[in-house]
Amino acid sequence: MKNFQYYTPTRVIFGKDTEDQVGDLVRAQNCTKVLVHYGTGSVKRSGLLDRVYASLDAAGVSYVSLGGAVPNPRLSLVYEGIDLAKKEGVDFILAVGGGSAIDSAKAIAYGMKYEGDVWDLYLKKTPPADATPLGVILTIAATGSEMSDSSVITNEEGWLKRGLSSDLSRPRFAIMNPELTYTLPEYQTMSGCVDIMMHTMERYFSHEMDTGLTDYLAEGLLKRVMEAARVLLKEPQNYDARAEILWAGSLSHNGLTGCGRTGDWACHQLEHELGGMFDVAHGAGLAAVWGSWARYVYPSDAARFAKFAVNVMGIPYDYADPEKTVLAGIEALEDFFRSIHMPVSIGELGVELGEEQIKELAYKCSFMETRTIGGIRKLDKEDIEKIYRMAK
Amino acid sequence: MKNFQYYTPTRVIFGKDTEDQVGDLVRAQNCTKVLVHYGTGSVKRSGLLDRVYASLDAAGVSYVSLGGAVPNPRLSLVYEGIDLAKKEGVDFILAVGGGSAIDSAKAIAYGMKYEGDVWDLYLKKTPPADATPLGVILTIAATGSEMSDSSVITNEEGWLKRGLSSDLSRPRFAIMNPELTYTLPEYQTMSGCVDIMMHTMERYFSHEMDTGLTDYLAEGLLKRVMEAARVLLKEPQNYDARAEILWAGSLSHNGLTGCGRTGDWACHQLEHELGGMFDVAHGAGLAAVWGSWARYVYPSDAARFAKFAVNVMGIPYDYADPEKTVLAGIEALEDFFRSIHMPVSIGELGVELGEEQIKELAYKCSFMETRTIGGIRKLDKEDIEKIYRMAK
Repeated sequence: MKNFQYYTPTRVIFGKDTEDQVGDLVRAQNCTKVLVHYGTGSVKRSGLLDRVYASLDAAGVSYVSLGGAVPNPRLSLVYEGIDLAKKEGVDFILAVGGGSAIDSAKAIAYGMKYEGDVWDLYLKKTPPADATPLGVILTIAATGSEMSDSSVITNEEGWLKRGLSSDLSRPRFAIMNPELTYTLPEYQTMSGCVDIMMHTMERYFSHEMDTGLTDYLAEGLLKRVMEAARVLLKEPQNYDARAEILWAGSLSHNGLTGCGRTGDWACHQLEHELGGMFDVAHGAGLAAVWGSWARYVYPSDAARFAKFAVNVMGIPYDYADPEKTVLAGIEALEDFFRSIHMPVSIGELGVELGEEQIKELAYKCSFMETRTIGGIRKLDKEDIEKIYRMAK
Repeated sequence: MKNFQYYTPTRVIFGKDTEDQVGDLVRAQNCTKVLVHYGTGSVKRSGLLDRVYASLDAAGVSYVSLGGAVPNPRLSLVYEGIDLAKKEGVDFILAVGGGSAIDSAKAIAYGMKYEGDVWDLYLKKTPPADATPLGVILTIAATGSEMSDSSVITNEEGWLKRGLSSDLSRPRFAIMNPELTYTLPEYQTMSGCVDIMMHTMERYFSHEMDTGLTDYLAEGLLKRVMEAARVLLKEPQNYDARAEILWAGSLSHNGLTGCGRTGDWACHQLEHELGGMFDVAHGAGLAAVWGSWARYVYPSDAARFAKFAVNVMGIPYDYADPEKTVLAGIEALEDFFRSIHMPVSIGELGVELGEEQIKELAYKCSFMETRTIGGIRKLDKEDIEKIYRMAK
């Protein structure tokens, strides 16, 4: 087991009607002026935003609002948020929405405390030194950004998608009411389930075998998300299934399922480029590349893939031919993705990849051939091209 | 699933040589004068305390020391610590040791910020309003106090053992180096393993069935602790097994394995009275009463006990006679306790309980007949007497 740090200071307030506590929670942070940051209007139409304002009013907290965060949140809106928050003397940012609103809020939080261009931080030119405190009211189970230290922003100039991780951006609190996720369309719900699973799988696929406890936690989480997703296909308003994936989303990306080992993260890098170029749903993009990635890299650690097949996918171990176990496990997860109407190829995303685009994606993904991606197997630009080609 | 809050702000620094970071960690808390609180000298003899002092010196942090915390930590030492810390202008408490040193440190932390008698807080006469910040260097996997909000103190006057829970006492950081636990005697190691398991089992035995994710996490943790305990019987210096139980100890009592449901906690209450009267090792005391408690209460929720038998103890479900599954599960855990040389009766603790003592224990445990204990089945004084009698 490798040395690790585990730090999850976010106070989770989970369950029915918990959004009514938001005013008191902001006050408990000794903050008085909030930027309420949200997406493209569903939180307004559902009446959630009005309840949030009522709670802030009741607690004597003033606020300004900024909507417009979109999937693969844009740098231009981040700039707008920074300007608005500075002008209004904001001392707390409240994201109301999913990963897009939260990630956008995190970037605004960094930008408010950084003199230069916030994009420099995402380009890793300099590490962040401070951030405005933020909180979250979550409306979709997916990115885990509500407890994580990370955010991902897309720069429209060149459609570059870049992530930044720092404890400074961990939300002070996260309000999670499963009922707020009842009205999500099936595609978004299932894309979220894939994202949740992938946050754990990126950590699970590791050469470190001596992390039995972390493995049990990861395997349990993966099994539960699959069970709950199947329920939600038929009963989108099943409270317990909604609750389980909502909580799983946070645990899957707060560090718990990676303690004691290094992760892989190649699929996220592969998808980030796709998302930057084609604006596909993040979870669906991950489902589209995972199988090809898995078939390309499994020979580098067949034992780990076999453990996944047996303990997560319920495949009987083939003692005579363990490779069959590995391949059956990969197929079983792809079958699961299909069963929840997720793509297992880039074509099924509605994207027809040409050879030029594959080369461009791989070039960008390798940071212009300056890095490899992945842990189970290190992948250079050539490898990345091959995987995109397999996945297309 | 019930509404819940989850709050674990403790920064965990886990792995080899991590104790050398303690000076920097205290400085990062903006504290300058530390009370180093420890037990009966093993941390001195092992040289750990010298390394701690060296790290504090290197970081320019001054300190005073107070040893002497014993299992079932005493109120008299807490008073001594409060006086010393106040006199010396201490602004941070560092517990170096196990649950005894940590719980004692938590009580000192409360007492420093409370004008009256700190025991009033443990008697619930008034809730704590503040506490001096504290950190931990952990030397035994057991109580989980390093991430928990709780502490238990024994008042020598009447040998009353009382607990107090508040987020104010959650340590700011917890340094966990598995190598520091290598030299623990087998009895303490195994008693710790039982304590860790019981912190999860007290949460697991609940009527709430719609917490599948929490159940998977709990079941995985229990299985892993049993696996690691078996390894440590033969290889007490197996790094990974030591690491797994150390981390399991924290996760078992930081709230994770109870999210979404109420717990039971009757076994802890039964053992607290035993520990107060006879000063037995906490984990061993829990092992001694668990089987009798389980046989007494299982008819109140046979389904939950069957799930435990199948998913944790690996008992095949008896479809024709589910009660057989339940009883086989209880026996299997008692067999496990025996296999790691833990008692399964109070007599095996070396305590011969007379009828008068049983009545006194039950009277105290029911808070002079003012409360019931337990969640799976509410237990009054008569029930408690019966369980002590079964367990003797």
